[in-house]
Amino acid sequence: MKRPIPFSYPNRLFLLWFLCCLSGLAFAQPPRGPLVVSPQINDDKTVTFRYLAPAASAVKLSAQFEKAPVPMTKGEQGIWSVTVGPVKPDIYPYSFQVDGVTVMDPANVAFFPNERFKASLVDVPGDKPLIHAMRDVAHGAVTYEYYPSVSGTTGSVVVYTPPGYDKNTSQKYPVYYLISGTTDTEETFFKVGKTNLILDNLIADGKAKPMIIVMPYGNIAARIAEQKGGSKPADPTVRDGDDAIKRANDFGNDLIGNIIPYVDKNYRTIADRNNRAIGGFSRGGGQTLRAAFGHMDKFAWVCSYSSYLSPQEMDKNFPQIGSNPDNTNKQLKLLWVSVGSDDFLYKGTVEFMDYLKAKKVNYKSLITDGGHTWMNVKKYVAETTPLLFQ
Amino acid sequence: MKRPIPFSYPNRLFLLWFLCCLSGLAFAQPPRGPLVVSPQINDDKTVTFRYLAPAASAVKLSAQFEKAPVPMTKGEQGIWSVTVGPVKPDIYPYSFQVDGVTVMDPANVAFFPNERFKASLVDVPGDKPLIHAMRDVAHGAVTYEYYPSVSGTTGSVVVYTPPGYDKNTSQKYPVYYLISGTTDTEETFFKVGKTNLILDNLIADGKAKPMIIVMPYGNIAARIAEQKGGSKPADPTVRDGDDAIKRANDFGNDLIGNIIPYVDKNYRTIADRNNRAIGGFSRGGGQTLRAAFGHMDKFAWVCSYSSYLSPQEMDKNFPQIGSNPDNTNKQLKLLWVSVGSDDFLYKGTVEFMDYLKAKKVNYKSLITDGGHTWMNVKKYVAETTPLLFQ
Repeated sequence: MKRPIPFSYPNRLFLLWFLCCLSGLAFAQPPRGPLVVSPQINDDKTVTFRYLAPAASAVKLSAQFEKAPVPMTKGEQGIWSVTVGPVKPDIYPYSFQVDGVTVMDPANVAFFPNERFKASLVDVPGDKPLIHAMRDVAHGAVTYEYYPSVSGTTGSVVVYTPPGYDKNTSQKYPVYYLISGTTDTEETFFKVGKTNLILDNLIADGKAKPMIIVMPYGNIAARIAEQKGGSKPADPTVRDGDDAIKRANDFGNDLIGNIIPYVDKNYRTIADRNNRAIGGFSRGGGQTLRAAFGHMDKFAWVCSYSSYLSPQEMDKNFPQIGSNPDNTNKQLKLLWVSVGSDDFLYKGTVEFMDYLKAKKVNYKSLITDGGHTWMNVKKYVAETTPLLFQ
Repeated sequence: MKRPIPFSYPNRLFLLWFLCCLSGLAFAQPPRGPLVVSPQINDDKTVTFRYLAPAASAVKLSAQFEKAPVPMTKGEQGIWSVTVGPVKPDIYPYSFQVDGVTVMDPANVAFFPNERFKASLVDVPGDKPLIHAMRDVAHGAVTYEYYPSVSGTTGSVVVYTPPGYDKNTSQKYPVYYLISGTTDTEETFFKVGKTNLILDNLIADGKAKPMIIVMPYGNIAARIAEQKGGSKPADPTVRDGDDAIKRANDFGNDLIGNIIPYVDKNYRTIADRNNRAIGGFSRGGGQTLRAAFGHMDKFAWVCSYSSYLSPQEMDKNFPQIGSNPDNTNKQLKLLWVSVGSDDFLYKGTVEFMDYLKAKKVNYKSLITDGGHTWMNVKKYVAETTPLLFQ
């Protein structure tokens, strides 16, 4: 039996508005007006997006599955909407352009952690569960840890532990260090890459070994500026002003000198190179290759997602990789390179693979469709983690 | 010796732009133009906010420390800015109003997790470290866990474990269940409330007992709609359409039936009522009081932050609390009620305290300045956690 509604509809709407406002009322921008459902995934894989803007002149949807922004239509109560698709099942970033201003979807909690842009996320499920789908399997946990980092700063790192980690207290695990891209944060592999759910699924299906995954923040310079910069970060280039190689080395030093020791001390790791992998996307891929080639005693498994080092940098900074391929091939149990055919780093990545080939350095590669996207990153994580520690 | 800069300044700027864009390039809204530093905390506790919008006509700062939006001024390269304050040290939500459209600060990673609005966070440090300051003390960890919840859904809960939890593997801990407000998420006590850092500091200073803190998501109906709603959540009231009491009971049932058993199974808890506390803010405070008064066998410590139950609801649903005060006072080791004098729930909270007083039910209270804000929530957490389990 349905419970009676103890108040009339207008009062009910008011109550909803009131409840909705509780947390934000004292803040200068409380949510007002009707509750908006967005995004709404429809059975036919179309998606309806809605945005409340009674006073706006034009609202568009900007989504990574669309080549150009899609105009939305103003409807009742000032709610703009558009239904697009069918959309190929995956997770996509999107935002609204409201009279030319880019905004996240206020009605959607799922967001893309990033230093330089703000985007929401829409997850269009497949008819069969996608690699990152929340399935009814045992789940690992994701932990935010602080560690003592360079220059007296406190670093933040996100750590995936596999299902059963807290129960099997005598078991030790291999570790995969996984570094996100430029302007991403230590949260991006978790919140956008769904690395934890991909691993939960692969482990449940017996395809990947249970492993710990450590996701650091790649932008050491920004954290130093934030925590130690004092009052004068006025030069807007302070955060990213050093060149990429120096920053990669700073990151590598923090990784080798601080993060790995912290993880080995605080988690039940198998603390040797054969049980330690490193991988990364975009800038994180460059940091991966530099850390791996510069510290061959630390990592036996190396994955570069949508990134590369130039032949010039290889010859200058890591000549031993190509000059002694037998040793390189003996030491590296996996060197993986993947990129999308539409990625703007495609050409450089192919050059890198050609360099490895010419030097007789073994590597595995995967060229996919698509560009420099987190849709591809998820795919690469799902392809490579089953190869690690086997 | 300084490393030479191997490219001229314009090229360097281009490189910065290029690096900055790597992660977003294929997405429809890559960051473009100059890097923007915002917010910038100055020595004198003024704060400079900046927003890049070359085409905008008017940009304002909307911040919880300002009574009204503050106009910003357009400067070089289309960067709008304003310096405000000195600002009383604390964490505040803020956003920009760009030609009337509310947006988060794209240059700031710190955000306010919420179902209905999007805001950034600025943390103005004190001359002495504030209660939530990142100090050089031992830090606990914050873990995102999945648990089997109602109606076949998978719930998400955020768990703070105190420093040393992973090392002292024979030690068991009391647990504080802490529920956030309407439209907040399970992340809000972590990301906005900084509950983990407050506890790290209190524990380091010997003021609070080491405890586990469990932060659930209060909006069960929304999660069911999201995971099980199928294709037709078209009625925008679906997410919040049930009345508050039914939703609180649904939440209480999930807490008692699923979350507590999950936590007791997977963490080293002392699983009895004397070592179990419950507290919450706003809607979470109402959920707290209903769960506590409805399950006196479960919780001996109860904290209501900026919330209350009406005398009518108390008499109707929890008559035994007031009719047998000796028993209530014997069972509840702490009943805490706090509210800000400017809180729009102040009057109802005072009525609730008057009710308790009239019924001779013991309680402790704290009336602070300020309103229904997370600045006050932090204060209440810092005041109450030292009282728990003592």
